[in-house]
Amino acid sequence: MARSPHIKLGFILHGVGRTWHDWRHPDRDVNASTSLARYQEQATTAERGKFDFLFVADSLSITDRSSPHYLNRFEPITILSALAATTSRIGLVGTLTVSYSEPFNVARQFASLDHLSGGRAGWNVVTSWLGDTAANFSKAEHPAHAVRYRIAAEYLDVVQGLWDSWEDGAHVADKASGQFVDPDRLHALDHKGEFFQVRGPLNIKRTPQGQPVIFQAGASDDGRNFAARRAEVIFTHAETIEAGQAYYADVKARAKGFGRDADQLFILPGIAPIVGNSDEDAEARYRELAALESIDTGLGFLSRTFNDHDFRQYDLDAPFPDVAHLGLNSQQSGTLRILAEVEAECLTLRQVAERLATPRGAFVGSAETVADQLQRWFESGAADGFVLFEPLPGQLAQFVEKVIPILQQRGLFRTDYEGTTFREHLGLTVPDNRYSTARNAKSAA
Amino acid sequence: MARSPHIKLGFILHGVGRTWHDWRHPDRDVNASTSLARYQEQATTAERGKFDFLFVADSLSITDRSSPHYLNRFEPITILSALAATTSRIGLVGTLTVSYSEPFNVARQFASLDHLSGGRAGWNVVTSWLGDTAANFSKAEHPAHAVRYRIAAEYLDVVQGLWDSWEDGAHVADKASGQFVDPDRLHALDHKGEFFQVRGPLNIKRTPQGQPVIFQAGASDDGRNFAARRAEVIFTHAETIEAGQAYYADVKARAKGFGRDADQLFILPGIAPIVGNSDEDAEARYRELAALESIDTGLGFLSRTFNDHDFRQYDLDAPFPDVAHLGLNSQQSGTLRILAEVEAECLTLRQVAERLATPRGAFVGSAETVADQLQRWFESGAADGFVLFEPLPGQLAQFVEKVIPILQQRGLFRTDYEGTTFREHLGLTVPDNRYSTARNAKSAA
Repeated sequence: MARSPHIKLGFILHGVGRTWHDWRHPDRDVNASTSLARYQEQATTAERGKFDFLFVADSLSITDRSSPHYLNRFEPITILSALAATTSRIGLVGTLTVSYSEPFNVARQFASLDHLSGGRAGWNVVTSWLGDTAANFSKAEHPAHAVRYRIAAEYLDVVQGLWDSWEDGAHVADKASGQFVDPDRLHALDHKGEFFQVRGPLNIKRTPQGQPVIFQAGASDDGRNFAARRAEVIFTHAETIEAGQAYYADVKARAKGFGRDADQLFILPGIAPIVGNSDEDAEARYRELAALESIDTGLGFLSRTFNDHDFRQYDLDAPFPDVAHLGLNSQQSGTLRILAEVEAECLTLRQVAERLATPRGAFVGSAETVADQLQRWFESGAADGFVLFEPLPGQLAQFVEKVIPILQQRGLFRTDYEGTTFREHLGLTVPDNRYSTARNAKSAA
Repeated sequence: MARSPHIKLGFILHGVGRTWHDWRHPDRDVNASTSLARYQEQATTAERGKFDFLFVADSLSITDRSSPHYLNRFEPITILSALAATTSRIGLVGTLTVSYSEPFNVARQFASLDHLSGGRAGWNVVTSWLGDTAANFSKAEHPAHAVRYRIAAEYLDVVQGLWDSWEDGAHVADKASGQFVDPDRLHALDHKGEFFQVRGPLNIKRTPQGQPVIFQAGASDDGRNFAARRAEVIFTHAETIEAGQAYYADVKARAKGFGRDADQLFILPGIAPIVGNSDEDAEARYRELAALESIDTGLGFLSRTFNDHDFRQYDLDAPFPDVAHLGLNSQQSGTLRILAEVEAECLTLRQVAERLATPRGAFVGSAETVADQLQRWFESGAADGFVLFEPLPGQLAQFVEKVIPILQQRGLFRTDYEGTTFREHLGLTVPDNRYSTARNAKSAA
């Protein structure tokens, strides 16, 4: 299969914001995090823009160090199910951890969402990285990183096995004969593994997509292998186009190494575009946003990155201090990136602190500038598309009204939905049912 | 608080039907079990009838002996969340087991549903009675009955504790000062019990109802005590008005014994009304329904009730055989009830077999007859209201159009919703937040 000529676009649904203090923006509804109306508004705007999907992030533990957007939020399955009833085409992707849930329940909830939405469900498989989550789930400790990936692989085997337990045609429901199911097409899974023992079958029939779409966000070596082997969409993070290209090439090569068609695996970095009437206007909006963060937040990030060095001793508006020698032993990739930006753009300490507290990214400018950047990343093999945060209220609508038409004119984005399911939007094939495949092989032999 | 003058009414959402073969009715949509449109239709009709709530039953294991309506169905949280977006007043009650789920996840999902719906969530707390469910959840065996009730009590402690973790006023979100939460009003639960250790707080703020409404369906002695102590609504089963009165009196007395206001506990038997243009018309509809079941199903039920006696040896249309001596050692209440009906109505073997395969209940007749029966049960202390099954397609609409107006004329049912939350419909008070109570007691001292 050839690479799609279209950029894939997702939108991250959210409540009060993305950074620590952006809820303080005058236009932000501070009750958005538990407002169905606000979520519906975002969903409707993204669907008007013909986005491929909506995405809900998640976390399962809060403390007095948690950021506002994690403190108070809808649970993903509930808000996506509600939006299934008020949208008609856009994909619905929810984050759900394998570390603190049961595969039977999760398989059921996503299958149910896929039926409710007419084939628009996706599951972002995560393993949870916050160690203190264990304390909310009657566990003495959080499983170690490598164990979490073993759990994830087996968990996904179980869930996808359960999704296959009803073959097409298993639900006969023939009123004349009285046959409700065809027992030859309804299968127990009888999974017996290292972590899970699950008999099956699932108590909901095969879904419109056959299997909901699998998302993952692997960054570590284990994570990249898991994603390259099992994911259909990878939600990643890339500060620069070069970092994006390196990740993209690496994961696509791994996927090929696992015998997969790399064009059936989409790599989508998260971005936070700010579209202005001009590049200067967009820059001003970014600075308005950055001004909401306390400069101390950024100085704190800097201190952690540069070996606990105290940056409060310097003049904020002087050129960034010479601290290159401090960072190399702690967080090398972070320090090198900061120092490269300082050199390229002659940044002051204040500017660096602002960027750390409010990541700016490469997508700030006029609609043309943002479209150019998207095209550059897409065409240079840094991304198959993007997952958008909305850094400022109203930015999604700006993107839909101003950037999408440019992408459409350039042939880089759909002008309307062509299919009804999320798999159809992505151009992903429906996976064969394992039992139907076995049956067909048998009857062909 | 005095007893409400209004009957409470719930409706059980369902797909293909209630009994083994009622999906074969010519008017039944065999794809209803996974059709959002069908569920929306039911929800809209019930809300038009000013019902108090919609109810979703559940089960977590299927085998080749499962009935069609359990084989294939929506997961409760997902379908209720979808309906939260398309209804505005009616309560939304979902069944979820404490045996195969995590209290943190369940607390979150119901809290999220309560926010999504503007205060309309209810949780039917069940312990799961199907032993083979364990096989779908990596467990060697299903917990014993008494243990399940110990688990349920502690589980509910945790969930209700998490629902209290944000006091009113904890979500400050003051843009001027930058204060997002008031740390004095956001509480860790720090629960350490026999089965669960849960730190908290929950990552969603206090819900519109303070606490979603708690349903239970206790029938055994342990179950009745749990329901009388903790439930706000009891969904029960009563074949006859006398059985209903006995259960009602017993559970209300237990509730008083636990120091509760018995008028804040609603006892609602499940019923399956068939409303016809006349009593005869309704009877004919019941027989049309009963005819869908195989007579063997009924004979099988009889055999199990009467000590494995073989009823196929008798003439189906002759008077019911004299088998009184057979049943008394096995299922005494069941045999006595059947024999009483046989004597009162001079039933044939076929009629008894039909009633067992397709329970008829006391609510078959013209709209007047059904309204009379509802009133009789309500006024004689057999019920505070009812949870309706729809035994035949179209019966919910018949009930709404013909029975509800009679109840309204008699002052037995609301003519419109007076509040917006499910608690307001029931006349249930909002439980005090435990931390606010402690704070108030302290400041009063």
